Amino acid sequence: MKSDIQIAQEAKMVHIKEVASSLNIQEDDLELYGKYKAKFSDELLSKIESNKNGKLVLVTAINPTPAGEGKTTTSVGLGQAMGVLGKKACLALREPSLGPCFGIKGGAAGGGYAQVVPMEDLNLHFTGDFHAITSANNLLAAMLDNHIQQGNTLGIDPRQIVWKRCLDMNDRALRNIVVGLGSKMDGMVREDHFVITVASEIMAILCLADDMHDLKKRLGRIIVAYSFDGKPVTADDLQATGAMAALLKDALKPNLIQTLEHTPAIVHGGPFANIAHGCNSVRATKASMKLADITITEAGFGADLGAEKFFDIKCRMAGLKPDAVVLVATVRALKYNGGVPKAELTTENLDALKKGIVNLEKHIENLQKYGVPVVVTLNSFVTDTQAETDFVRDFCQERGCEFALSEVWEKGGEGGVELAKKVLYVLENKESNFKPLYEDSLSLKDKIKTVATEIYGADDVTYSPAAEKELKRIEELGMGDFPVCMAKTQYSLSDDQTKLGRPEGFNVNVREVYASAGAGFVVAVTGSIMTMPGLPKQPAANNIDVTDDGVITGLF
Amino acid sequence: MKSDIQIAQEAKMVHIKEVASSLNIQEDDLELYGKYKAKFSDELLSKIESNKNGKLVLVTAINPTPAGEGKTTTSVGLGQAMGVLGKKACLALREPSLGPCFGIKGGAAGGGYAQVVPMEDLNLHFTGDFHAITSANNLLAAMLDNHIQQGNTLGIDPRQIVWKRCLDMNDRALRNIVVGLGSKMDGMVREDHFVITVASEIMAILCLADDMHDLKKRLGRIIVAYSFDGKPVTADDLQATGAMAALLKDALKPNLIQTLEHTPAIVHGGPFANIAHGCNSVRATKASMKLADITITEAGFGADLGAEKFFDIKCRMAGLKPDAVVLVATVRALKYNGGVPKAELTTENLDALKKGIVNLEKHIENLQKYGVPVVVTLNSFVTDTQAETDFVRDFCQERGCEFALSEVWEKGGEGGVELAKKVLYVLENKESNFKPLYEDSLSLKDKIKTVATEIYGADDVTYSPAAEKELKRIEELGMGDFPVCMAKTQYSLSDDQTKLGRPEGFNVNVREVYASAGAGFVVAVTGSIMTMPGLPKQPAANNIDVTDDGVITGLF
Repeated sequence: MKSDIQIAQEAKMVHIKEVASSLNIQEDDLELYGKYKAKFSDELLSKIESNKNGKLVLVTAINPTPAGEGKTTTSVGLGQAMGVLGKKACLALREPSLGPCFGIKGGAAGGGYAQVVPMEDLNLHFTGDFHAITSANNLLAAMLDNHIQQGNTLGIDPRQIVWKRCLDMNDRALRNIVVGLGSKMDGMVREDHFVITVASEIMAILCLADDMHDLKKRLGRIIVAYSFDGKPVTADDLQATGAMAALLKDALKPNLIQTLEHTPAIVHGGPFANIAHGCNSVRATKASMKLADITITEAGFGADLGAEKFFDIKCRMAGLKPDAVVLVATVRALKYNGGVPKAELTTENLDALKKGIVNLEKHIENLQKYGVPVVVTLNSFVTDTQAETDFVRDFCQERGCEFALSEVWEKGGEGGVELAKKVLYVLENKESNFKPLYEDSLSLKDKIKTVATEIYGADDVTYSPAAEKELKRIEELGMGDFPVCMAKTQYSLSDDQTKLGRPEGFNVNVREVYASAGAGFVVAVTGSIMTMPGLPKQPAANNIDVTDDGVITGLF
Repeated sequence: MKSDIQIAQEAKMVHIKEVASSLNIQEDDLELYGKYKAKFSDELLSKIESNKNGKLVLVTAINPTPAGEGKTTTSVGLGQAMGVLGKKACLALREPSLGPCFGIKGGAAGGGYAQVVPMEDLNLHFTGDFHAITSANNLLAAMLDNHIQQGNTLGIDPRQIVWKRCLDMNDRALRNIVVGLGSKMDGMVREDHFVITVASEIMAILCLADDMHDLKKRLGRIIVAYSFDGKPVTADDLQATGAMAALLKDALKPNLIQTLEHTPAIVHGGPFANIAHGCNSVRATKASMKLADITITEAGFGADLGAEKFFDIKCRMAGLKPDAVVLVATVRALKYNGGVPKAELTTENLDALKKGIVNLEKHIENLQKYGVPVVVTLNSFVTDTQAETDFVRDFCQERGCEFALSEVWEKGGEGGVELAKKVLYVLENKESNFKPLYEDSLSLKDKIKTVATEIYGADDVTYSPAAEKELKRIEELGMGDFPVCMAKTQYSLSDDQTKLGRPEGFNVNVREVYASAGAGFVVAVTGSIMTMPGLPKQPAANNIDVTDDGVITGLF
């Protein structure tokens, strides 16, 4: 069997000009990065502004398991299948983070015959967007420490610095550090932290900004610290906004690549819906809707994180109205949720399936709360039995969902035709009555409680004293009407990653809260979720290599 | 008067395809990054391998002063002037570091009407090479700490870790840090350090590597730490080589841009000759020599650092034989060396000039030790008087150097014709008998002493006990035949930045020594030079901005 990277490297890509031309984009409106990657010029985005909007389809999933679900694979395959059916479809996906490539996860470009390419470029530096975010983030940090070093006229309290440095790397040793050691010329000693780049507020800002004007406004509002008299100190106060924006000028432009079947894929902005808002950029999604009749986008991890944030943060802020949701599951993952160990997932086990399908059930119920029609799809494995897939099909149809099998991993677009037809049926026949889960006017605590109880199934929410205090300060500072961005483990509906299925009788514990004043949301960190991942005992990096003539191997 | 960025932004660039075509490069051998930047494909480098080599001219300078010398400006203007004279010339320059753009220095693309463009791109992320180096450097660090965290089977002594993290940012607070704080899951506590990316050994490796095969060999040899039993632990031991090489795959390819007059400029690899070896890449220089009749390259800061390392490290390792050296000075800088404060440099002052010209004198003597013919050029300012320039001209001619005024800042290529003619005269009439300053077989201490006494003019060299000990270990490990890479202040010939002119009666103090086993040299850190710069009280970043339609301002 061929590996993902082998399939990707054997793919015959067409020049990105041709892909663009299928969306009626002229070559002059592209900024080429080699032959197979391009950024959209600002002029293009202006030109298409008056186009009619196409339909918007979100792909999300059940909670991830070690068995693999294939959300990106399904998204890509669905896009390819729309092409098979002669539809003008475009993908609007997230850029992978470099860090996890070297950890457990490997690449994130889909899999099998449903991939976006060039996959090595996408998984490594791509067009440099994340590096630009890292630079802007760390310039702000350097200017902050330099301000303190040079006299601290803003009266920044070193104990109340909330801005963190970042790297696009899984590096646990940087979670908690002390900086500024040495002599007088080496800065003030203080505690500091690195987060992974995708968790930087600048990633969220880039993804939510309408344009350069909006980007700068948001960057300027970032709260980096509080002063000794308790006032917020912002990036504008440090005169850092313009230089950060200059660093982000190109990163703000959406990127175009292609699937293995040449479907256009706009890949732009932020993964990691466990610790960030986890959606691709608003500019990319909107551009796709102007350029194509059907836009297929995805949001990270399970629907409890990805879809919730897509609806309650991105759609709320950007005024988007999704037309359908595709919910991805696998028989294997459902059995795993039913208590079957990974090694035994290949055996038919209807009892375990019945037990584990409650995870899917909860996600269906959740998605239906947003008023958007749901299509459930099973990403097929050869070991799935007829009885198992029939059971899932019946289960979904009883709950008012369309259902389709997907074989895109093995067959590419052809394997997604059944799913694509179901999606088209929904787009033509079922009305979306999308509304976010909660109103802006609810208090922050009530918003957190609404998500925890309605989406996660918790009984209640508890807060650390620090979180309580910070929530109060945030409301006093006038940010009480922000939506909340929950940071929670992706592996469970609860904040405890060991609780599979559909946990009940639990509380969610909020241990830390902070305002992302530029992004425009309040982050609530739950359980033991980390904003800087670590590497495993055998990092994927050990197996990555490049031949003397430049062919990358071992990147999955 | 227009600012550099205004001139650059008003420039009418031609498509990079056209620039490439002036070097007989086909479009298919380019990897485009937008319309005005491209990387050379590996195929191109193979194709030109059998071409005849053109001539190689190094541009260097006296010690830098706040008055400004204009080394890059002169290099670019000389390239433009060769074009005016109908010569097939190509520049081989270094990529600017992002850090100093936000500090004091501003951009580094030349100045006035002698610039390479697009200057904003070049000064910000360019084609991402430095970000790739940062990522590879920090992946190795993360894998190192992870190895310790996961059981430390290699027996790495946390007190003897020599690998440092890096960022392309001036950030003094990261010079000395403690990492791994927190709980058991957050790594082992240890002291750590960040250097600026250009000081990373990976920058040197990228610049010295012949090809991907050589790059991987060099990466694998990097010593990251020593074990409890004193053995070196390498990147190969950590199984990090392949993944680092994968990150550097594209960064290894030279970049092509253009001057304001469309002269081709290959811009690739490493600045900062004070703390690194400070030369552009060997691949770029060699490619330029295969593509053009005259290659103009430069090395960083004054000739005591830049030219010395260019000759003794780069030319030695790559087998290059430079044909001529251009030594850049200004009347203002020479008067500053003669004790005139910055505010009074516009007044004629022959006494100060006579006093300060000893700095130029020493650099001329030094360059002549390498057997390469020297052309001295004065980068003209309107305030220079006839008597002053006549004095410098006579001084140089008495010492066997050609001399020419340069007005490239104001007039572009036309302003460099006199200089270009002198360079052409030297290339046609004077023979280069290049040889490095010292033999490989000399001991490390003797090499350091040779550079300190012969080039800097020191009486002797003193060593810290730690440096003594490390030199011994390095020779025991078999690296005694490496050349030395001195880290020294650029502002003085001595290791004390306050000593202007031609200091005498001083010792050089080596406080730290380490082996760059992959790069193939031994670094000797002198005086109080830092491998991570800081930001000044008013960082240049405060004035950098970008308009709503994407035009960058305030970048000098």
